[in-house]
Amino acid sequence: MKIDVKECAKLLKEKDNILILTHAHPDGDTLGCGFGLCRALLKLGKNVRVINADEIPKKYDYLHNDLKFEDFKEDYVVSVDTATENLLGDLADVYGGKINLCIDHHGTNTNYAEKTLLIETAAACEIIYQVIIELGVEIDDKIASCLYTGISTDTGCFRYASSTPSTYRIAADLIEKGADNGFINRVMFETKTKTYVRLERLVMDGLKLYCNDRVAVIVVTQDMYKKSGSNEQETEALAPLTRQIEGVEVGVTIREKIDGTCKASLRTFDKVNAAEVAKCFGGGGHPQAAACRFDCGVDEALERIVKKCGELLK
Amino acid sequence: MKIDVKECAKLLKEKDNILILTHAHPDGDTLGCGFGLCRALLKLGKNVRVINADEIPKKYDYLHNDLKFEDFKEDYVVSVDTATENLLGDLADVYGGKINLCIDHHGTNTNYAEKTLLIETAAACEIIYQVIIELGVEIDDKIASCLYTGISTDTGCFRYASSTPSTYRIAADLIEKGADNGFINRVMFETKTKTYVRLERLVMDGLKLYCNDRVAVIVVTQDMYKKSGSNEQETEALAPLTRQIEGVEVGVTIREKIDGTCKASLRTFDKVNAAEVAKCFGGGGHPQAAACRFDCGVDEALERIVKKCGELLK
Repeated sequence: MKIDVKECAKLLKEKDNILILTHAHPDGDTLGCGFGLCRALLKLGKNVRVINADEIPKKYDYLHNDLKFEDFKEDYVVSVDTATENLLGDLADVYGGKINLCIDHHGTNTNYAEKTLLIETAAACEIIYQVIIELGVEIDDKIASCLYTGISTDTGCFRYASSTPSTYRIAADLIEKGADNGFINRVMFETKTKTYVRLERLVMDGLKLYCNDRVAVIVVTQDMYKKSGSNEQETEALAPLTRQIEGVEVGVTIREKIDGTCKASLRTFDKVNAAEVAKCFGGGGHPQAAACRFDCGVDEALERIVKKCGELLK
Repeated sequence: MKIDVKECAKLLKEKDNILILTHAHPDGDTLGCGFGLCRALLKLGKNVRVINADEIPKKYDYLHNDLKFEDFKEDYVVSVDTATENLLGDLADVYGGKINLCIDHHGTNTNYAEKTLLIETAAACEIIYQVIIELGVEIDDKIASCLYTGISTDTGCFRYASSTPSTYRIAADLIEKGADNGFINRVMFETKTKTYVRLERLVMDGLKLYCNDRVAVIVVTQDMYKKSGSNEQETEALAPLTRQIEGVEVGVTIREKIDGTCKASLRTFDKVNAAEVAKCFGGGGHPQAAACRFDCGVDEALERIVKKCGELLK
């Protein structure tokens, strides 16, 4: 059932033991939502814990490293920024069918939770911001930093057309409340590890163009992780690079997983709907950024996805 | 003489034939200021023209390609976003000592104009925004796009710590007034020509680290322009890359000019003042972004600048 911000805040106020789930392969958006909401609920005296299926990349330490979670039995499960249950990764096995509330901004949300607060026109952390205001919690510097991180990473640091006047005004408010925007953006966008720099070089050297140079594809293999000393956690910044070459309409990043299967991230502009492409392969996302998994190896995945893009570009 | 926004608007209102100068090697910041102010003054029925020493990169076409400048004899010369007269390039020979008004945000401004409106804590286009409000001109979509372009390019698309709550709120206002933020940021930050991609690869392959990996230096030679098919106009995006490697405190980009001399761009974080380094070599800028020229070749410039950075990092 769809609910609004007011109803969402009311539900959260009624519960005392809340478990928050972020999606697997967690990024700044889902973590900002999770820890931002968690901190607000802690201020209301509730038991709250944030969990996710995968390790949280070290660069997000400042979002949560001062938090110590108490042991408690949850009576309310909330997912944030998660369009489908299987995006919860391994947590889907435990919490599938048991999610009470979902706060999300993906048009492809499958309505899997008992109640869903869905606003497609906002960054997920903008929705959490509204919920926190409705909860009557004063936003402190820690909450502000969580929410700013989510908004900034979700909008490519305010680059994308998805950033609305409201996005900018909320960001202004969060900076006034103590979000350290210079530090956050430096860590999120301006700091590349030496291993990542090596990985980026290897990956970009293999960039290939298809469909009259309108589709750019990069492939990240397990071998490249070995050669560069990098790992999957560091690949987040690669996907946007595919779309940056003049004339490219679809950027595809295929990441080989350790079991030989792979995952593809899609970045597009107006002409192709990334979520539509991803949906053909059982995935989902936004019109300009989406992802899907393949049970096959990278070569076959590449062929299938390029073929589909070719059809859509016709 | 230093003046405030009110006084600046008053002076501009009194004049009828206004010439606006931007700095040489024009970027989004100076062009956004120039054309934004120009459009506002045209709406007041004045004769206005914007000129600069170098060709305007094609990607900025949307800032000015609908403007047709009438011939007129100027009675008031205004420079924007220009810290010193020699940054005007060849225009310094004609207008040196004759600039009536300077609107700028550089702490290194040499006070060369008759009157100077200087606000160090704002992007240059934020100051122009204030001036236009004070002039009583309604900001239309064209003016909004100029000012948004300047603010976005000056703040690295709202990345840098220099972006204040006011920066974000003005951006929100400009988007509401018609600035096409998605398009602008796509053109400014998300579009790389194939020639630029080749140049970036060549340049980054030669990246060297000095001073215990705390100083990163890249060199752009005339030969690299030939090999990549790129040119100096496309080098703007290179400088920020130098500072992105973990542990690097100073990023230096040395560009060889056609006469064999060179220009260095500096990007730093808190520990080193970029403007201070640039000043040692007769240049200037901001604490975290500055530039200077050398009469020598790239090798000697590199040696001198690395030596100076080494001293400052001690």
